[in-house]
Parts: sequence; C-alpha cells; structure tokens
Amino acid sequence: MSVTAPRGFAAAGVEAGFKHSGGRDLALVVNRGEARSAATVFTSNRAKANPVLFSEKVAAAGDVRAVVLNAGGANCFTGDEGYRVTEATAALTATELGLDAMNVLVCSTGLIGEQLPIASFERGVPAVVEALSDDAAGGDSAADAIRTTDTVSKQSVHQADGWSVGGMAKGAGMLAPGLATMLVVLTTDAVAAPDVLEKALRASVRVTFDRLDSDGCMSTNDTVTLLASGESGETPSEAALTEAITAVCADLAQQLQLDAEGASHDITIEVVGAASEDDAVTVGRSCARSNLLMTAIFGNDPNWGRVLAAIGTTDAAFDPYDVDVSFNGVRLCRKGGPDRPRDEVDLTPRATHILIDLHAGDETATVLTNDLTHDYVHENSAYSS
Amino acid sequence: MSVTAPRGFAAAGVEAGFKHSGGRDLALVVNRGEARSAATVFTSNRAKANPVLFSEKVAAAGDVRAVVLNAGGANCFTGDEGYRVTEATAALTATELGLDAMNVLVCSTGLIGEQLPIASFERGVPAVVEALSDDAAGGDSAADAIRTTDTVSKQSVHQADGWSVGGMAKGAGMLAPGLATMLVVLTTDAVAAPDVLEKALRASVRVTFDRLDSDGCMSTNDTVTLLASGESGETPSEAALTEAITAVCADLAQQLQLDAEGASHDITIEVVGAASEDDAVTVGRSCARSNLLMTAIFGNDPNWGRVLAAIGTTDAAFDPYDVDVSFNGVRLCRKGGPDRPRDEVDLTPRATHILIDLHAGDETATVLTNDLTHDYVHENSAYSS
Repeated sequence: MSVTAPRGFAAAGVEAGFKHSGGRDLALVVNRGEARSAATVFTSNRAKANPVLFSEKVAAAGDVRAVVLNAGGANCFTGDEGYRVTEATAALTATELGLDAMNVLVCSTGLIGEQLPIASFERGVPAVVEALSDDAAGGDSAADAIRTTDTVSKQSVHQADGWSVGGMAKGAGMLAPGLATMLVVLTTDAVAAPDVLEKALRASVRVTFDRLDSDGCMSTNDTVTLLASGESGETPSEAALTEAITAVCADLAQQLQLDAEGASHDITIEVVGAASEDDAVTVGRSCARSNLLMTAIFGNDPNWGRVLAAIGTTDAAFDPYDVDVSFNGVRLCRKGGPDRPRDEVDLTPRATHILIDLHAGDETATVLTNDLTHDYVHENSAYSS
Repeated sequence: MSVTAPRGFAAAGVEAGFKHSGGRDLALVVNRGEARSAATVFTSNRAKANPVLFSEKVAAAGDVRAVVLNAGGANCFTGDEGYRVTEATAALTATELGLDAMNVLVCSTGLIGEQLPIASFERGVPAVVEALSDDAAGGDSAADAIRTTDTVSKQSVHQADGWSVGGMAKGAGMLAPGLATMLVVLTTDAVAAPDVLEKALRASVRVTFDRLDSDGCMSTNDTVTLLASGESGETPSEAALTEAITAVCADLAQQLQLDAEGASHDITIEVVGAASEDDAVTVGRSCARSNLLMTAIFGNDPNWGRVLAAIGTTDAAFDPYDVDVSFNGVRLCRKGGPDRPRDEVDLTPRATHILIDLHAGDETATVLTNDLTHDYVHENSAYSS
C-alpha cells in the first residue's frame, strides 16, 4: 500500500529480465487524475544518466502522466545508444497507455556503464501495463520491482483530511549515494497547482532525503517525483501539503537508512546551538562523511575527538573550544575537552545518537547516516564482480 | 640519515615512556647554525591541538632553534591542563639547551583527548638532549621516535650544489589525515632569509603533502617545519631552494602513501586536460575521497563509472560526456562512455594509475591516495580500544 493509496493512481511491477538474479524489475505508476500536476527533483550530479537527461525534458514539457522504472541497470555512461533505449522505453510505455512519450518519466537503477536490453522493455512494458492495478497489490508490486540491493521494499502513506500522500523508494547504499541510486515516487490525490507542488516537494526533500547523507553527492540517477491526481477534490494549503509530503519523505528516508548496505549502526547526528540551519547541516555532514568517525562507531568507540576533528574542517560559525559532544545521552566532551568517561557510553545498540552543541546560536538540524563497516567494504568492492 | 645530513643540525630520539608499546617516543632536532631561519606550516583544521596552539606563537616570535616531538599522545582536546604540558615541554627543552621556551616548537602525535604525562617529559627531555648527535645515528633515532602506527620510519635527503636538504616524516593514515597526525621536520644548511624559506616551503607543501589526500582535511596536529642553518655558506635562488625542498617533500609524501594504514593499493590519480591546476586538484581529490571508488579498487575492479560519478560532484570546468578515463594504461572510458573492456585491466599490482583527461585545457595535477580496505576499517575502528 503506497503509491496507490491516494485516489487516481494505478501501479504494477513485473519481471522483465533485467536482473540477473530474477524477480520483478520493471515498475509503472500512472496518474489517471484529470486535475493532475507533477514535480520532480533530479540529481545534482553533473554526470547524469540517460534516464535523467531524458526525464528532465519530460518534466520541462509539463504534463507528466506516468513514471516507468527499471532495476537491473542504471543506463548511465552508455552513450547515444543508451539514450535511444530510454527514449524507446518512454515511447513503448506511451503507446501502451495511449499517451505521448513526453508524458512518461523514465528512471533506471543498477550498474553503471552497461547497456540495457531494449528487448526486455519490449517484453516487459506491455506486461506491466496489463498488470496495472489501483489497489494495494499494484503499489506493493511496483515497490518490490525497483529493489536492487535493497533487502526490503520501502513504502509509506500519510492520511490527511480527505486526501493522502503515498510513496515508494529504492535505495540501500546510504553510505554510498554516489552509486546508483535513490529513486522515489510520491503520489497524492490532493489538488495542487504545479508551482505549489514544486515548492512543497523541494521543501520536503531538503529536510529529509538531502539529510540522509554520507558523502553528500547525489548519484547519477537519483530522482524524486511527486504526482498529484486531484481526485480527492481537496485543495490543501501549501503548508499542509508540505507537512504531509515531508512526513512520507521522512519515513522513507528512515527506511533507506535502516536498509543501508553493510551498516551495523543507524546514526542520528543532531546538531544544536548553530548560528544558522546551513551551519548545522554542514557540521552534521562533516561527521557523516568522516571515515575515521564512522569506523570508530563500527568499533563501538564513542570517539568524540574524531567529531571535533571532523567539524574543525568546516567553515561553520563556532569556537572549537566551546563545543559539547554527547553520545547516546552521555556528554563526553564539554568545551572541547574531556567530560564524562567514555566507558559510560554503550554503543552496542544499532541506534546511535550523537548530539553536538555548537553554542553559537539557536538553529538545529539532524543528519542521518550509517557506520563504515567491513560489510560496506565487501559489498561495494564486490558489487560489479 | 635525514635531518642531520645538512650541516649545523643535531638530533636524537629516546624512549620516554609515552608509548604503551614501548620503544623510542621522544625526538629532538636542534638548529645550531648562526645564520639560522625557520618556516612552519600548521594544520588548517580549526580544531587545533595544544602543541599547535603553542607552536604558532613560537613561530610568530621568529627565532625557532629546536623542535621537540613526542609520539604516544596528541595532546589534543586536553584543555588548559594540556596546554600547560606543552608549555612545560618547551620550557624543559629550552632549559636543557640554554634557550628560551619561545625558541622551541612542540609537536605531538597519537591519541586525541588524553593527557600527556609531564613526568615522561621531565625524564625524557634531559635524556634526548644528552643523546643529541650530528651524525646519521642522530637523525635515524629521531625519525624512529616519531612513529606511531608507522611500520617504517620515513627519511629523505637531497644533495644540491654545496648544500643539502634533509627531512623526516611521521604518518601512516593517508586515508585518514583527519586523525593525528602528519609531522614533518625538514632541515637545510643553505642560507635563506625567512621570507624566502616561507615561500619555498609553502610552494613545496602545496604540490606534495597537500596532494596526498583522501578526505582533504588536515588533522588537529599536522605540522611541517623547515629549519635552515646557513652552515653551508651557500645562498641558493628561491627556485633552487624550492626545487630541493619539493624533492624531499615528494619523497616523504610517497613514503607516507606506501605506509598507509591497511591499504592494498597505492593509487596515483593523474588529471590532465584541466582548465586550471585547481580544477585538476579538485577532480583528483573527488576521486580520492570517493568511498565507492576506493572500495572498488580494493576489489581490483576498474570501475570507471564511479570515477565519473565522483568528478560529476565537482564544480571543475569539463563536460562529463567529453571525459576519458584510463586505468593502468588502458582507456576504459572515452567521452563518458565505454571504450576498452574492463577485463583488459590488471589491478592486482599494488601500484595503481588512474588517468583522467578532462579535455578542457592544458593544466594537470597528480593526487596520491590509497584504497579503502577491510584492514583500514579494522585498524581505525580498533585504534583507541
């Protein structure tokens, strides 16, 4: 139950032959609403995959009616041939749905640098259109089909007052957003003008997916799409819409964190006392990106010195010798020096909380990440072999 | 043979009791030249260790005559008490040498957040002064004493025309410059004015230690000091001085790379065709800092897609679809798409060469790094336990 929870949507997932391991690997979400609109956030990586290059044009054309997604290959750095495969995918899907290719967003995830077989789309697209369903099974099978190394499918629904937001996500490499990929499709039956939808989506992504971070760079394929059908007849305020979308995005982001490849700790880095929200995010990210700190936590070592060394590389406003750091509720560092003994902290639970008080203002931000483990090294070194 | 190779210097290393593992852990280098000068580059990390905070004042005072260095503790985030230990170390050393405390630079390396025992300095400083020697044994024992997780000591000498440059370095965590620490002491018997020495040192560090990189942030303790004794009577040009210092720094940087904790590949990232040297460095660093790329190389996987994904996060001037990437001489990627088959590349040798041609200009830069391995995770998770 996810993208089909709001009215006006149908979805499906089928096996089309992309994944060597077998199983569902082609998903489709269709917006059947008359008062439809859409908003999309693409990767900020300059090295964009062919589906992103194509879908940017679809989004700009302004009438997105369907999203087709495949696992088993990212179609990235595959040259002109790869771009033609993406175009053909949209065209095939449009034909089956009675639409134009420029109504169809295409998302792909999997290995970089390998061509996707067009034959699998030729076989799979009619099947996934045939399988379209507006009940829970449709959303469930679509969410299942976009998995790559994900151990579970990720779905979320938020019920508002007479309207709702649903969503599905794919992504398991939260220490590795540079790979391919985080794909998200959100749906709502609210009535929303495109500019309102766009603002609500960007505001939601900024405080959820953008703070699920370890190296801060989005992958070549990352795409978050929000489709509104208008079928509820309800027109929520921009604030209410943003709140509901943020709730779904936050839930999906946490599910992505919990399923990160090879992680043994789910780490919440809470930065308080910052002079600005940007400073708080910068400080949180510098910790999430510190291999030294992330390996220490893997070893159940509450190494607050590595926190200070990490944040000392940023340009955020604070005095290093006025910073407090707590691990799981125990303040180990006060004013940049030792406070409570390290052995008062128990880092054996998977959930880990790091609180950093900069004593430089009143702003806060929370960044989610995972530790750096043997399994991370193994999974990412063996990925393409 | 290193810091005592140039005339006018004495050095020694003794066991003072800082390292739990035992062995030499206190080093001293003394400049006995009449026409002496000095230059120092300190860490750019804002979270500076007590020895750095103190030594910045010594350097500013303008008459550095000795450098005392300890392993077995970084004296970082140890508060006012830690600062007093550093001050006392300089005072003890100055007293033994007949100098002022403001003539003595102090460097410390080892764990962060723990107090250094002043008693070990009280015992060790007289011993290391007593052991001072201007022959090779002096330099050798000093280089040995600054090792922490270093498996070998690092020394280098460059003979110029009637004068020379010597150097020693400590550092084994090239994927981990955020820890503590890289310490370097360079000596020369050339005659050089302080401003010339400063410019030559900064120019040398910029193209050597600053390009030995994985997360780009210097540690809390990093210090590179250059002492000139003037004892050769030769006054080389700034260019000749820079060339000789750069040669020693490049040699030491490579020794640091080869001894990186837990590494299985020594990786040279050569960026050519850049619009500017800064762009070339930025692109090289983005690769060195990509955990995904560094784990791929650990797995002997020439994953050029991860190169493009990494460089796509930078603001360097290039078109991602005009970039070529070669691994160990085999061009796997041409114009952002597949070129030669991956299996033509043999990544089993430890030495790994990645060539990135941006086709955006004529500038170049080379960045050195190491792969991300199980041993790296192990050593850095176990470091303080």
